[in-house]
Amino acid sequence: MTTPYEYAQTHKARFEDELAALVRIPSVSTDPDRVADVMAAAQWLADHMRHVGIENVEVMPTGGHPVVYGDWLHAGADAPTLLIYGHYDVQPAAMSDGWTSDPFIPVVRDGKMYARGSSDDKGQMFAHLKAFESVMQTEGKLPINIKYLIEGEEEIGSEHLYAFVAAHKEKFKADLCALSDGGFRTKDEPAITYSTRGMSYMQFDVQGPARDLHSGAYGGVVHNPALALAQIISKLHNADSSVAVPGFYDDVIQMTTEERADLAKLDMDEAGLRAEIGIPQSWGEEGYTLYERVGARPTLEVNGFVSGFYGEGSKTVLPAKAMAKISCRLVANQTPQRIYELVKAYVASITPPGVTCEVRLLNIGDPAYIDRSRDEVKAAERAYEKGWGKPPIFMRTGGTLPILATFRRELGIDSLMLDYGLITDGAHGPDEHYDLEMFHKGIATTIAYLHEFGK
Amino acid sequence: MTTPYEYAQTHKARFEDELAALVRIPSVSTDPDRVADVMAAAQWLADHMRHVGIENVEVMPTGGHPVVYGDWLHAGADAPTLLIYGHYDVQPAAMSDGWTSDPFIPVVRDGKMYARGSSDDKGQMFAHLKAFESVMQTEGKLPINIKYLIEGEEEIGSEHLYAFVAAHKEKFKADLCALSDGGFRTKDEPAITYSTRGMSYMQFDVQGPARDLHSGAYGGVVHNPALALAQIISKLHNADSSVAVPGFYDDVIQMTTEERADLAKLDMDEAGLRAEIGIPQSWGEEGYTLYERVGARPTLEVNGFVSGFYGEGSKTVLPAKAMAKISCRLVANQTPQRIYELVKAYVASITPPGVTCEVRLLNIGDPAYIDRSRDEVKAAERAYEKGWGKPPIFMRTGGTLPILATFRRELGIDSLMLDYGLITDGAHGPDEHYDLEMFHKGIATTIAYLHEFGK
Repeated sequence: MTTPYEYAQTHKARFEDELAALVRIPSVSTDPDRVADVMAAAQWLADHMRHVGIENVEVMPTGGHPVVYGDWLHAGADAPTLLIYGHYDVQPAAMSDGWTSDPFIPVVRDGKMYARGSSDDKGQMFAHLKAFESVMQTEGKLPINIKYLIEGEEEIGSEHLYAFVAAHKEKFKADLCALSDGGFRTKDEPAITYSTRGMSYMQFDVQGPARDLHSGAYGGVVHNPALALAQIISKLHNADSSVAVPGFYDDVIQMTTEERADLAKLDMDEAGLRAEIGIPQSWGEEGYTLYERVGARPTLEVNGFVSGFYGEGSKTVLPAKAMAKISCRLVANQTPQRIYELVKAYVASITPPGVTCEVRLLNIGDPAYIDRSRDEVKAAERAYEKGWGKPPIFMRTGGTLPILATFRRELGIDSLMLDYGLITDGAHGPDEHYDLEMFHKGIATTIAYLHEFGK
Repeated sequence: MTTPYEYAQTHKARFEDELAALVRIPSVSTDPDRVADVMAAAQWLADHMRHVGIENVEVMPTGGHPVVYGDWLHAGADAPTLLIYGHYDVQPAAMSDGWTSDPFIPVVRDGKMYARGSSDDKGQMFAHLKAFESVMQTEGKLPINIKYLIEGEEEIGSEHLYAFVAAHKEKFKADLCALSDGGFRTKDEPAITYSTRGMSYMQFDVQGPARDLHSGAYGGVVHNPALALAQIISKLHNADSSVAVPGFYDDVIQMTTEERADLAKLDMDEAGLRAEIGIPQSWGEEGYTLYERVGARPTLEVNGFVSGFYGEGSKTVLPAKAMAKISCRLVANQTPQRIYELVKAYVASITPPGVTCEVRLLNIGDPAYIDRSRDEVKAAERAYEKGWGKPPIFMRTGGTLPILATFRRELGIDSLMLDYGLITDGAHGPDEHYDLEMFHKGIATTIAYLHEFGK
């Protein structure tokens, strides 16, 4: 009897052709002229899901671009259910951005498929459908229940997805979400991302005098709001570059020695960082590696500020007000609302008496984190060993994926990022490409995960 | 024989009519459509100066609006020479700004002439010409030599005057400059302003990474330039609100006990300041009164700053750069260039190693100061006692008058501000007016000063 792995090997060329057909549809979600193309991609995907045996397939309206849903739920009530999340929409692309060949006519060069969306996320997402097909065509059934939620607005902020998930809690009910929408550092270093940072985005508004004043007439007797804001901001960090807000780190889950040892292997290179972004030297919280500072530690950033006169030349204004955008990146167990309240209370305590400072919360995002000791994570380790021939490394990313927090909040489930791409794939840039070896190893890894997930 | 004072009393109504004729000419120097009006005012003034007996009257081209010059130099080589500075141009004015009556049709209500320029500076300047006339018509000669330099670009920054004065050093040579272009606090409190502040206006440019970064990917390992700039600015003042730049106060002339006692009488009222400009409480250098902080002490102000994102909503940028406009107001004996060098050196010493900070000098203005013990100042005190019936108080102003520094540098002379206006005259605002009692007392004071100046 043929194994699913053998089936996938046998049908490699067809799988690649099918992926090429999908990436050929220019489903650019941000482009109003591409609405029909986005819908065409959703329809293509729904048809293909039905074709490989996925059931209850629907193109579901969301208020924006649709979600494509499908499931296979015949493993029995005792078997666990896995939710696969992905997206079929893509970033804009044009030859004038520097593409070597047409971004919507896939071309394979050196084993890599060049096309917009080939990696992000059509290719990585499609590996999951090909794994499903390989198992069904050889074993006739899956050992677990599975649901697919493939959205069409990821590249424009998943605007309608949050309410959509909340409105369909029962439909998307599962034990875990898995997604493949990111990248390893190198081909031979498969990785599981188990942590994303959250966000608490605030605005500080400092008000001094009721109107702008002449600095000659009042300079020296009024606490200048720009000065006061600079003084407030300067007190947000300690001398060791840790955040000075009392209680800021209280809820942070401390890393274990094992975890830190693993993360140490991923540490950024100081010289490389300097060269990459052009800085004299790195900065950050003492006692932590560069990698930990970005991935495993919460931070506080000034995203911008403005006050008074900032044009060409000189104007001797004493400004009435000053404003700053301040955001905290949060890690597991921190809550954006609580961090906002801590920052607000601290700012109130350090605001000079000659001005007022209002702190408003503009935007939040929960951090996401899955415990590495969980069975589903161990299962993923075994799947990578089977599919890739190597155990995965464990990564934490500094960015925020609000959809993971939505799954946590609305469905009560954690998410596991089984990346099947490379950080060098050029997602969002010109000449995006997908190494087809990654595609096929991704299919094999998912085949393995479908078998390991319930164990 | 009629005294000059009696002459001036007799001709009060005509003097007012003449002033009304001058303010009726809308000599708005900033308005390109008013170039002919500005020239008409200059011509009117030149004609009037000739009419009252001033000699060598010229409307002198400057590259912009002309200077009106005239002199009377028959007091003899041993007699001192006084240079009178004033301006015949005015600020813009329109009914839509909130004027009660047409700004260029003077109307007298309650003894006050309402019109643009009635106080600033046509009225105050014209008092000097009427004093000249009163002395010449009664005594036939002046006890001192006198020169008049009446410019047409004061309201637009005296752009061409600096080079003009430098090009005509011999013509404007004098022993002292007197000007009347400011205001007392109340009608019964005549004042001599003996000090203006200078200026050293700088720009700080902080550069971090070579480009804007994503705060999720790099937040925590890069010294954020906005944060670094806030930290630099926060170190520019000490805890007692004095300026922290080493050497900043080194060249400041210390106030005498007598001077401080006089200034104490002028101190601002804390409650009044709070109400006037709408602040919770005042601020400033410990150990000095509010009045001293503005008038007698150098300061450092943030005139504005900008970095990263400052629009509506949230954007998680880690900005590549941050910029601030920083100006120091200086007092007598401080030099703008030296202050710039001190600030630059200090900023270099406090700039965090992860960023660079360039400090550039954008604009300078020397402080001006005249020693109160000088004979010409004592003469002015006696003149006010005669003309106003009260001895003047001595004021220091927080603003900068670069033209006074120009007279000091190019002509080697100090300037004395014999204000004949009130701070409540509404200069630059709607319903500017000039209390005609101030006008006539100003004439009498100048008559007295022409006699006292050489003593």
